[in-house]
Amino acid sequence: MNKWYIGEGDHNDIVISTRIRLARNLKDYPFPARLDNKSKIKVNELVRDALEGREKLDYTELKTLTRAQIVSLAERHIISTEFASSSDGRALLMSEDEQISIMLCEEDHIRLQVMKSGLDLQGAYELADRIDNEINEKLEYAFDERLGYLTQFPTNLGTGMRASVVLHLPALAEKGQLNSLASTVSKLGLTLRGAYGDGTAPFGDLYQLSNQVSLGISEKAAIDNLKTIALQLAAQERSAREEMKDSKLTEDAVYRAYGILKSARILSTKEFMTLISRVRYGAVCGMLKVDLKTINELMVSLQPATINAFVGRTLTKDERDVERANIVRDRL
Amino acid sequence: MNKWYIGEGDHNDIVISTRIRLARNLKDYPFPARLDNKSKIKVNELVRDALEGREKLDYTELKTLTRAQIVSLAERHIISTEFASSSDGRALLMSEDEQISIMLCEEDHIRLQVMKSGLDLQGAYELADRIDNEINEKLEYAFDERLGYLTQFPTNLGTGMRASVVLHLPALAEKGQLNSLASTVSKLGLTLRGAYGDGTAPFGDLYQLSNQVSLGISEKAAIDNLKTIALQLAAQERSAREEMKDSKLTEDAVYRAYGILKSARILSTKEFMTLISRVRYGAVCGMLKVDLKTINELMVSLQPATINAFVGRTLTKDERDVERANIVRDRL
Repeated sequence: MNKWYIGEGDHNDIVISTRIRLARNLKDYPFPARLDNKSKIKVNELVRDALEGREKLDYTELKTLTRAQIVSLAERHIISTEFASSSDGRALLMSEDEQISIMLCEEDHIRLQVMKSGLDLQGAYELADRIDNEINEKLEYAFDERLGYLTQFPTNLGTGMRASVVLHLPALAEKGQLNSLASTVSKLGLTLRGAYGDGTAPFGDLYQLSNQVSLGISEKAAIDNLKTIALQLAAQERSAREEMKDSKLTEDAVYRAYGILKSARILSTKEFMTLISRVRYGAVCGMLKVDLKTINELMVSLQPATINAFVGRTLTKDERDVERANIVRDRL
Repeated sequence: MNKWYIGEGDHNDIVISTRIRLARNLKDYPFPARLDNKSKIKVNELVRDALEGREKLDYTELKTLTRAQIVSLAERHIISTEFASSSDGRALLMSEDEQISIMLCEEDHIRLQVMKSGLDLQGAYELADRIDNEINEKLEYAFDERLGYLTQFPTNLGTGMRASVVLHLPALAEKGQLNSLASTVSKLGLTLRGAYGDGTAPFGDLYQLSNQVSLGISEKAAIDNLKTIALQLAAQERSAREEMKDSKLTEDAVYRAYGILKSARILSTKEFMTLISRVRYGAVCGMLKVDLKTINELMVSLQPATINAFVGRTLTKDERDVERANIVRDRL
């Protein structure tokens, strides 16, 4: 079955994906930190049963998965790294296309996440809201008239919603404008940071823009705000791309990246992400005829543990870099 | 017409080319350093006329060539950089395939050079010897019973012969063995040094092995000595290649180089030579299906002035690097 990231979506020259995440807790149970494993499983099963027959989701207790499978889920941003750090009493509800995932007994009882290709905050929110209502029809949430949804950490109080988009910003990165943009958007209650890799040198020029405030602001206002800023960043990226469009240096970098990806026998994650970023830029500019779906899929699926999961065993780093190069040559 | 370097030749997995050069002076004229331009032209025409109807050679006074054409001849090792440094009273006799070239009034009246593909010292020497005899039938050489052929510089006294081969030694270079090999062969009266680029970092792993001694040794002995050492170096290079044959790193480097050459929009001389060296190695090992003739031709013809001469005008470095990349993509 095709995964969600195979879709195209609006503004997909720049916006890779949209994510809505809702944090919820059941009224009648303490937060997970205060629950023993048996009670956690009980909570997990209550949520599973609430959605039974309404959403087509697979229920998996984390302890039944291999380490590689769990890390692979985190690499693909289906679960959080926090969720991946322990299997005790944790379970996952997930749709086959990986668009919907519900982490059960992470920090909160319920962390419901919906992913969409391209920019689709409205679509993602509507789907999340539908599932949220379905659960709420069966189970009562911890809710306070003044504070809104109650959560383990106060940063999630209120709507309990985090909305984010992943943006591909190679031209703004090339121009060295990301730090100043990050500082600007933070004044608007948003955060812009690398979506993959460490903070100092994000992999593949992929940046996540997300809202930070969930208290004192409606879901609609938060989404509208995020959408406005995402579109502004996209416009700036497009104009930066336009400026460097005719540069031989840029053309050279794009074609070299493509040549190396189609030829190399060894590719580290970091190098792969750097090169595929240039290829994506070249494909969007019309220099290269490469399907964006293929690029998106490779970007998501060639992280270390995901390759291990694909191959079915734990490879050494050297073996993995060879396997990554094999997959890339095969797909490009 | 195909140039000499299009040929294949013996040991062409490693030996690119063979060169024999004979230095001669006419008995009845002072060395060029003591001649005025008019007398130099007289000498040049005497040599030209001596070969008239015997060898098919074009006669060109250097002053009729553009600077780019002259530098291009030097880049292709058809003339020396010393010869290219001034046009006054200098002329060139050259066969259309560039195999035979005679510099007239360089340091000596006659610098006769014959090039062959691969390892062919015997063939190159026989051809040089034939032309030498043809000249000598018409013109008397400056010759001393004890010292042999007299030359402007004492280092050429005796046979007046320099023999050299250009070897492609990527595996020995990779193993860092060139310095110690150069020191070893120098004890045997031979010199091993970079054939292109500066001394410290030869371009394209191409090394020239030449004899240094022309006094007190027969042509045959000098050639046999050079041939023996060239074959030993080739054997060492082959065994070094065998050692690194199965390395993924090597395979990766070869395919990347090929991918970049087929994709890049900008290529400097130095980068081009580094990459084509890897491609040649890969072609010889059977990893890549690329014709050695094409590789040899590119290696010889993509130096700066040769590209200018090809395009017909003096390009800036940036323009040239773009043109070089265009030619390489077109040929590979």
